[in-house]
Amino acid sequence: MNKQKRLRDYGVTIGKMQPGKKNAITDVKGVQIGHSTIGEGAIQTGVTSILPHTGNLFKEKVIGASHVINGFGKTIGLPQLDELGTIETPILLTNTLSAGITANHLIDYMLEFNPEIGRTTGTINPIVGECNDMILNDIRKNAISKQNVLAAIENANNHVEEGAVGAGRGMVCYSLKGGIGSASRQMTFGENQYTLGVLVLSNFGNLSDLTIDGRSIGIELNKHLNDSKSADKGSIMIVLATDLPVLDRQLKRILKRTVTGLSRTGSIIGHGSGDIAIGFSTATKIPHSSDSEPLAFSFIHEELLEDAFRAAGEATEEAILNSLVTANTVTGRDGNTRYGIIDLLNKYGMNL
Amino acid sequence: MNKQKRLRDYGVTIGKMQPGKKNAITDVKGVQIGHSTIGEGAIQTGVTSILPHTGNLFKEKVIGASHVINGFGKTIGLPQLDELGTIETPILLTNTLSAGITANHLIDYMLEFNPEIGRTTGTINPIVGECNDMILNDIRKNAISKQNVLAAIENANNHVEEGAVGAGRGMVCYSLKGGIGSASRQMTFGENQYTLGVLVLSNFGNLSDLTIDGRSIGIELNKHLNDSKSADKGSIMIVLATDLPVLDRQLKRILKRTVTGLSRTGSIIGHGSGDIAIGFSTATKIPHSSDSEPLAFSFIHEELLEDAFRAAGEATEEAILNSLVTANTVTGRDGNTRYGIIDLLNKYGMNL
Amino acid sequence: MNKQKRLRDYGVTIGKMQPGKKNAITDVKGVQIGHSTIGEGAIQTGVTSILPHTGNLFKEKVIGASHVINGFGKTIGLPQLDELGTIETPILLTNTLSAGITANHLIDYMLEFNPEIGRTTGTINPIVGECNDMILNDIRKNAISKQNVLAAIENANNHVEEGAVGAGRGMVCYSLKGGIGSASRQMTFGENQYTLGVLVLSNFGNLSDLTIDGRSIGIELNKHLNDSKSADKGSIMIVLATDLPVLDRQLKRILKRTVTGLSRTGSIIGHGSGDIAIGFSTATKIPHSSDSEPLAFSFIHEELLEDAFRAAGEATEEAILNSLVTANTVTGRDGNTRYGIIDLLNKYGMNL
Amino acid sequence: MNKQKRLRDYGVTIGKMQPGKKNAITDVKGVQIGHSTIGEGAIQTGVTSILPHTGNLFKEKVIGASHVINGFGKTIGLPQLDELGTIETPILLTNTLSAGITANHLIDYMLEFNPEIGRTTGTINPIVGECNDMILNDIRKNAISKQNVLAAIENANNHVEEGAVGAGRGMVCYSLKGGIGSASRQMTFGENQYTLGVLVLSNFGNLSDLTIDGRSIGIELNKHLNDSKSADKGSIMIVLATDLPVLDRQLKRILKRTVTGLSRTGSIIGHGSGDIAIGFSTATKIPHSSDSEPLAFSFIHEELLEDAFRAAGEATEEAILNSLVTANTVTGRDGNTRYGIIDLLNKYGMNL
Repeated sequence: MNKQKRLRDYGVTIGKMQPGKKNAITDVKGVQIGHSTIGEGAIQTGVTSILPHTGNLFKEKVIGASHVINGFGKTIGLPQLDELGTIETPILLTNTLSAGITANHLIDYMLEFNPEIGRTTGTINPIVGECNDMILNDIRKNAISKQNVLAAIENANNHVEEGAVGAGRGMVCYSLKGGIGSASRQMTFGENQYTLGVLVLSNFGNLSDLTIDGRSIGIELNKHLNDSKSADKGSIMIVLATDLPVLDRQLKRILKRTVTGLSRTGSIIGHGSGDIAIGFSTATKIPHSSDSEPLAFSFIHEELLEDAFRAAGEATEEAILNSLVTANTVTGRDGNTRYGIIDLLNKYGMNL
Repeated sequence: MNKQKRLRDYGVTIGKMQPGKKNAITDVKGVQIGHSTIGEGAIQTGVTSILPHTGNLFKEKVIGASHVINGFGKTIGLPQLDELGTIETPILLTNTLSAGITANHLIDYMLEFNPEIGRTTGTINPIVGECNDMILNDIRKNAISKQNVLAAIENANNHVEEGAVGAGRGMVCYSLKGGIGSASRQMTFGENQYTLGVLVLSNFGNLSDLTIDGRSIGIELNKHLNDSKSADKGSIMIVLATDLPVLDRQLKRILKRTVTGLSRTGSIIGHGSGDIAIGFSTATKIPHSSDSEPLAFSFIHEELLEDAFRAAGEATEEAILNSLVTANTVTGRDGNTRYGIIDLLNKYGMNL
Repeated sequence: MNKQKRLRDYGVTIGKMQPGKKNAITDVKGVQIGHSTIGEGAIQTGVTSILPHTGNLFKEKVIGASHVINGFGKTIGLPQLDELGTIETPILLTNTLSAGITANHLIDYMLEFNPEIGRTTGTINPIVGECNDMILNDIRKNAISKQNVLAAIENANNHVEEGAVGAGRGMVCYSLKGGIGSASRQMTFGENQYTLGVLVLSNFGNLSDLTIDGRSIGIELNKHLNDSKSADKGSIMIVLATDLPVLDRQLKRILKRTVTGLSRTGSIIGHGSGDIAIGFSTATKIPHSSDSEPLAFSFIHEELLEDAFRAAGEATEEAILNSLVTANTVTGRDGNTRYGIIDLLNKYGMNL
Repeated sequence: MNKQKRLRDYGVTIGKMQPGKKNAITDVKGVQIGHSTIGEGAIQTGVTSILPHTGNLFKEKVIGASHVINGFGKTIGLPQLDELGTIETPILLTNTLSAGITANHLIDYMLEFNPEIGRTTGTINPIVGECNDMILNDIRKNAISKQNVLAAIENANNHVEEGAVGAGRGMVCYSLKGGIGSASRQMTFGENQYTLGVLVLSNFGNLSDLTIDGRSIGIELNKHLNDSKSADKGSIMIVLATDLPVLDRQLKRILKRTVTGLSRTGSIIGHGSGDIAIGFSTATKIPHSSDSEPLAFSFIHEELLEDAFRAAGEATEEAILNSLVTANTVTGRDGNTRYGIIDLLNKYGMNL
């Protein structure tokens, strides 16, 4: 796999904290990312998986939480996540109209490895996020197959491919080609070092709002492109992972700070943008089966969240920008084309 | 169709308010209910549809709201319903593991009638509720087909068949056969008469908790059946319709009162019971397309909600009891049998 | 102090679980209750305190949560309680228009014992609940003094006086004299025994809805009293304590089940009734000051909450009924009188 | 009154939309702002009032909503605001430890003009927001008197004085002198023109995070000041007014977008920062007394909110910056001094 050129490779740094080794969500130990991509003519879509760990998630759940920034979206699985504060399947991302079928295939996958589901224990809560890729993808075709879903899970590893890949294949962000992006930040408390990572599926915003590290680059580009005022449709899915020992309530507080990073790239959180953040902590595994003894557990003092809040904002901001910078130009449905920002900058002799 | 014998036919009356003509959710003008039922050996499941009106729901949305009583459930469609306060598809109910595929088929159904979805306008938010029917149904088989989904929608009419039908086919309530039940109440404000109706998919509770109009009938039956203490697993889906002109916030307040009726039948709102209420008002249609002029609208003063609160509790209580009273004994997966309460009472020489 | 005659002394038992030794919130070890009562002519009001423990609550906070059943109320302190999941002051109850001044006096009390507040550390989040006692109390007089607030805190002990006392002095419940009531339940998990207790300030409901253990006693009494249909104004404050090791999210789930008990006494959760539940667990103390090391902690598996859910419903139901049964007849503002239910039953030759 | 020099007077413009005539919350017709300021030695605090209209707010309520960005705050009045979607008193802002007493005086004020409260109708829901001004103000003195509260209400007019005034007197923002700031934006839909205005009480952030229109001015200033890393304590109160005809749900959606502006000034929404937004629409008055006929009403189509979302972000960003730019240097408790940003820039020979 070619190494993709990312934001920092162009000399742009976001925020004040140090990234992890890969500057990606997979800096959080055990987290894996997989993609299945379809790029054939009018079908430009795919599936991306985020695996909190590689064991049996149903039997060893992770603490999870969500934050609905703007609920104009069709993410599946939030009521139970909010009620119980645990995640028990891989998190899958895909296009809006394929969320139902993707959830269905994810259920099948989980049933296969857990024969007791629906027999001696209850059911399973699939988590599937989505964005609307209708500009580049013939979304009405509902092209996601069971094979795509399984491949996205089985391809998962600790390298994050970014840009027009997986669920990001057909996504459009700030009127440019968007898709998958990632970043991470490190935190130190006493002797302990922790990591927080973010992966985004970016599909929102108008060009003239795009801001990179304070620079109104969208306005600069707009002089060339003349992207007339269009509504901030589309969406963003934000998946956040950390090895910080946090409660689900604390995790929800962290997730709320992803908005600061989102805002600093220029988003107004438009009406039509279903912006949803989902997060988990790998620090604690919650067993499916109960025991009469209380579970031992540890979590950080509330005040230490301050660093995690900053990390969440910075990593979200950089992940969004990485999704833009790594995305190639894609042509899809009806010949619609969305340009990678680097392709555009090159064309107009501009730099990041 | 045989007229089913319902709670009032046994001389039991719930609450103080007057029911509508049918004492069913279809007393709310325009609301239709349809079922598709599978009852073959180990497969005892189905789909039930609730149509807020029979026009194009995507183009003329109804004001909607939800209330998560206990979120240990997999209902699809709530984030957007909560954000926008509108419902734009039929509401479908089915078994837990078929929620994803049912949403997928519902999307297909909507795409067919709305060719502009995914082309000139955005996507669609399918609403699918579920309960876990694994005791009587081989839920791992995921038996719901596209035909079942379409049939449930196309069969819809203004008569409500109750009991072991549609999504209720395999459901178990208070350790007895549960399923679909309905009831309604009428309200008068000045010259205006309004109706509020409820349809439930009942699948929760332990026998010894069952209470009918204050009588601990579950304890009485338990002497015969010896249903040892079991967890209140399963769930209840509550769908509420009204022609009251209410805002989505007011509707949410009404939905919260369904808990009073649920409680009076004996529920403790168990941990494993995903109890979710979804409601809509038929009084106002919200157009999909926007206009620069404000929409004219009317809604009732907050104080008048008092009657709707009482109606929601009474109708929910009676709908649950109707689901029990109308349900026949069903034998399903592994020869598991759950008895209709009337069958049991007859067997032990007891009366309602 | 005379022993007050309570519901069980009349032979009525609620639910299936065993109460603690006192059948009161103070069965939870360390919890104390205090009252300050004003009963002079038109002034019939007071303050009730609930102390989660008797140490310095600011320095050793308890895990806390709230659940707003119906938000038509003026409780102070909920935003921070919801955000941080901790309680750092005694919980005070009083009349609606005195909530602000009571919070102010509670702040003074906390400042006195914590000289670092507002100097080397931040501020304090006072928690004050309220109900509207305007029928019996001249609420416009805002009669609560600093002395009342301090006395309610300083009088606290492990005996719970019930009925027309403290904040309950002027409250009206089901058109009868209401006020303070309490009850508790015990739970056993393996070797470990736990207690859950509830204290209510009851001030809601219409006589004809009153139900005691399934008996429509309100309708029976109404034949004598002819309480014409009136709105369910007033409110209920529910304070729940437990020594179960639970997270704030779990505690919130427990609090949501208080509604089942409330409903079974006949409440429709009327529009005008500000019904709010606040709870805490004494099992874990959260230090005010942070440390870089994670805090060790234990909590019960989610499935064990089932018993706590039942306990919350039962204890709430019995606490409300205890508030009625222990309340004497009180005459207050403008000669308004509300009768204790026992006084009324005696008058009409009826029994509980 | 001297005209204060504001952000635009220094040549800095925020966003793309046009401000109203005064570029202040009082561009929304009927809205008035009042201050009462105490600046005497160690007491540097005050009260600020926001009047949605100048009639009887209890009898003619405005549609209102809130959004808790970070709930580490003590704002009074939110439960009822969220439940009923209306505001029935002036909104008051003050210091944290004076919120209770300020609510108490606000109740008195409302009682005086509404003799039926507590007699023939229910009570009143005072709304009081706060920030912690302990650095400059001896907050333990609880210096706010009834006279301050009444003065803040009675002084209200349609000019907005900004900076170290009213509740803003002792506030510290980005380690500089903060306080009151305001801004507004105009929207046009078809023939109709609307205005949205914001007033902030700014008291949050670390100097090195301060960003003005993309410029990291905080880092530049920090080279001179060496503000070592400190936690983002303090808070921000955001009050938003509009004459757009919106439902309370729509208003809440607008309020959520204030975070974009907050973020663009550099906030990470720190743990200790109680960030709360409260908003109202003047377009519809909701009568206190009910009628059996539905109320006629109009509201804008959901898609038109897009402009209001942008306006909320821009106005919040500019209001925060106005609060900094207009604030003079203040010395208070223990000789603590916080510098006005203009004073500092002048000192170091820098420009905005």
